[in-house]
Amino acid sequence: MSKNRKITLSESEIPTHWYNVVADMPNKPLPPLNPGTGEPIGPEALAPLFPMELIKQEVSQEQFVEIPEEVRDIYAMWRPTPMFRAYNLEKMLDTPAKIYYKYEGVSPSGSHKPNTAVPQAYYNMKEGVKKITTETGAGQWGSALSFACSMFNIECEVYMVRISYDQKPYRKMMMQTWGADVYPSPSERTQAGQKILAQDPDTPGSLGIAISEAVEMAAMNDDVKYSLGSVLNHVLMHQTIIGQEAIKQLEKDGADLPDFVYAPFGGGSNFAGLSLPFVHLNLTQGTNIQCIASEPTSAPKLTKGVFRYDFGDTVGMTPLIPMYTLGHTFVPAKIHAGGLRYHGAGAVVSQLLADGLIGAEAIDQLETFEAGVMFAKAEGIVPAPEANHGVASVIRKAKECKESGESKTILFNMCGHGNFDMLAYQDYFAGNLKKHEMTQSEVDEATSKIDAPTIESVQEMLANM
Amino acid sequence: MSKNRKITLSESEIPTHWYNVVADMPNKPLPPLNPGTGEPIGPEALAPLFPMELIKQEVSQEQFVEIPEEVRDIYAMWRPTPMFRAYNLEKMLDTPAKIYYKYEGVSPSGSHKPNTAVPQAYYNMKEGVKKITTETGAGQWGSALSFACSMFNIECEVYMVRISYDQKPYRKMMMQTWGADVYPSPSERTQAGQKILAQDPDTPGSLGIAISEAVEMAAMNDDVKYSLGSVLNHVLMHQTIIGQEAIKQLEKDGADLPDFVYAPFGGGSNFAGLSLPFVHLNLTQGTNIQCIASEPTSAPKLTKGVFRYDFGDTVGMTPLIPMYTLGHTFVPAKIHAGGLRYHGAGAVVSQLLADGLIGAEAIDQLETFEAGVMFAKAEGIVPAPEANHGVASVIRKAKECKESGESKTILFNMCGHGNFDMLAYQDYFAGNLKKHEMTQSEVDEATSKIDAPTIESVQEMLANM
Repeated sequence: MSKNRKITLSESEIPTHWYNVVADMPNKPLPPLNPGTGEPIGPEALAPLFPMELIKQEVSQEQFVEIPEEVRDIYAMWRPTPMFRAYNLEKMLDTPAKIYYKYEGVSPSGSHKPNTAVPQAYYNMKEGVKKITTETGAGQWGSALSFACSMFNIECEVYMVRISYDQKPYRKMMMQTWGADVYPSPSERTQAGQKILAQDPDTPGSLGIAISEAVEMAAMNDDVKYSLGSVLNHVLMHQTIIGQEAIKQLEKDGADLPDFVYAPFGGGSNFAGLSLPFVHLNLTQGTNIQCIASEPTSAPKLTKGVFRYDFGDTVGMTPLIPMYTLGHTFVPAKIHAGGLRYHGAGAVVSQLLADGLIGAEAIDQLETFEAGVMFAKAEGIVPAPEANHGVASVIRKAKECKESGESKTILFNMCGHGNFDMLAYQDYFAGNLKKHEMTQSEVDEATSKIDAPTIESVQEMLANM
Repeated sequence: MSKNRKITLSESEIPTHWYNVVADMPNKPLPPLNPGTGEPIGPEALAPLFPMELIKQEVSQEQFVEIPEEVRDIYAMWRPTPMFRAYNLEKMLDTPAKIYYKYEGVSPSGSHKPNTAVPQAYYNMKEGVKKITTETGAGQWGSALSFACSMFNIECEVYMVRISYDQKPYRKMMMQTWGADVYPSPSERTQAGQKILAQDPDTPGSLGIAISEAVEMAAMNDDVKYSLGSVLNHVLMHQTIIGQEAIKQLEKDGADLPDFVYAPFGGGSNFAGLSLPFVHLNLTQGTNIQCIASEPTSAPKLTKGVFRYDFGDTVGMTPLIPMYTLGHTFVPAKIHAGGLRYHGAGAVVSQLLADGLIGAEAIDQLETFEAGVMFAKAEGIVPAPEANHGVASVIRKAKECKESGESKTILFNMCGHGNFDMLAYQDYFAGNLKKHEMTQSEVDEATSKIDAPTIESVQEMLANM
């Protein structure tokens, strides 16, 4: 056969380092603040929740951080992931664009999430931690961490939003198969859970509540730590193996560097994983690769939100973080792409957006499912609802190329398969999916409730320190 | 890293031919018989149901059949599939055995089934067929054919056993995403369905009924054909790309040829796909590779059944086929490995077993799920319940090696992932799974009902023709 659909790499080509964009950023992300005092907090404030090595990575200014051999050995169970040239999709769209995608659905839990779950479990194991707690909504992150913990013989305790626990048993069973303990949240196991159950015994739960439970469990026990699947810089950094592999694969295929790089955007790790190594090329080698985040119109923090300090969680327990946000109390519409229903963006990606170094666009879920079904018919893989956002962006751009006749190179992150999300497709085919577009005035209303320092006031405070 | 977990091949190494074991068999399989006359039937009898090229393959005596370029091009969407060295499982079992597995779960529908669905759809397309009908139980075969039809723009009509249609919506939605029409069976669309619904409007349906509907639809319409996912020789032949790739991969890894090859056994295509290329080596190069089918103790046709003529379907519509069988009216216990709940074995694999050229062992489903959970914790992949049978056989053998201290090489077919089968794991963890072991006297009772010629009587008839 003359053409290759898949561009593969050998295990020895798994990257040896994670890339830390902070080293290259013209404006470094502002520090997190103590919500009580309004003062910047240092790494020591994170010690009850995270192992020291991850805290060091969180505040690292190094350009590259070495990946431990034991982590690369577990990565080798599914990495390097294949890159595909989407010949069938190109043909279906009759576009002159060259479309490539990186497929992260080959991981044991079916998404990019194990890329950070594995090193997080590893560093916890190295520092003698016996158990890791976390929260999960639909279960994508919880299953990645459950898998990772089983690799290093650490206990894993997952607080799963009660309504998902009841309605999505498949993900729960997957976590249990890997040996995790999964509890519906709110639970009677924590003070936070008990308090909420006392007020409302029939509550469906929320990600905010589940975070509170997981954090409490870690904070109260010396040999228990907590783990987060997105937003934080060490998490974004772990995901950069995706983009690093992608660069090698494009080179191996004799392809140009992409003109456009797309990925879905929830808290930032999916997008950062593919795009930051390309941002690195832009910042250090003068390339002009446009990296564009695809967010849902129902949670348009990047395209319509404000850049200022806000809490990372709904309840307001975390430090204040500089972020593009819709307000931490804002509850996005219940779209099927649960992984993108987050009010804010991580500090690093927010700063990059503020500085014009990355872009963003918002897409409605109806358009994303239309794109996902087209992708499945063309390329075989049925994408996760989150992944459909990236697909929809690519299809928009490929159609533009058809109009203009330009043969641009487009790369996107097919971040996971939809095997656990088929009920979402059922809703789509049954015509039950609605458009959920937040207007600018709705966003303004939501963000007007934010009660935290502005970016400017903190910059001023820091300048005077 | 010094060791490689995955042994991969490039797309140019996808086999160029399917292997036809019939060419090498010392005793060829006996012909199918017309159940009315008891006479051998020729290929023309199959013409209403299958395209000519597949009928030719069904009766071919050629050792190798060329794979069309268009088929290899679609195979390249997921093939060559990776082979893994199961280092983690070896360590967990503390065995000197070297364990390898071929992973077919990377296909779009998640199993080995597309290996035959794609060429079947292709040949139908080439002969101008507009629509293919088929039956499906839990949905594994139906989704493979739906995917394949979407690749060649053929309509696909799937009759899905009603109880599965209602209880397993995920597989149904996957088929619909690829554009197939899925009907609960029995349906009002066919005379067979109408008749059964008139007798019992609330019937849960059965695979036998669904076959009748799909066959009727094909037989009644000139531009509609029928497709079968196992049992027949052309289906087994298409699957031999698995074993051919495996041989190349072992060689690439510098490994010895395996001492033992295991695969789950339903109708035979899974087992044949991996093992027949090794049987080829035994028959033509004097190797002594033991190829052993893993069947459920609840449907022990190979280990306890009789070798004689029987119908391929429950209702008795198909030609009579020489097979190891439990009797075509026998209904196996409702184990979760639905793909293995078949009363008989294909003619080719049956003849090989009768001649001692392959082996078989039966495993209870409790042992298979125990094995599957161990595999998931070791290797990350959560296997389909069918695949767990192969895993259980491997674990038995690896433990034997630990006892004896022998470093044997073991290869098995990890034929698919369990993403759509998590409720089976839930049943296992909840302690709801039962042992289902058919005793020899139960088998004798079931097979005593078979009313068809014996192998010997047909051999005698053929000798006198």
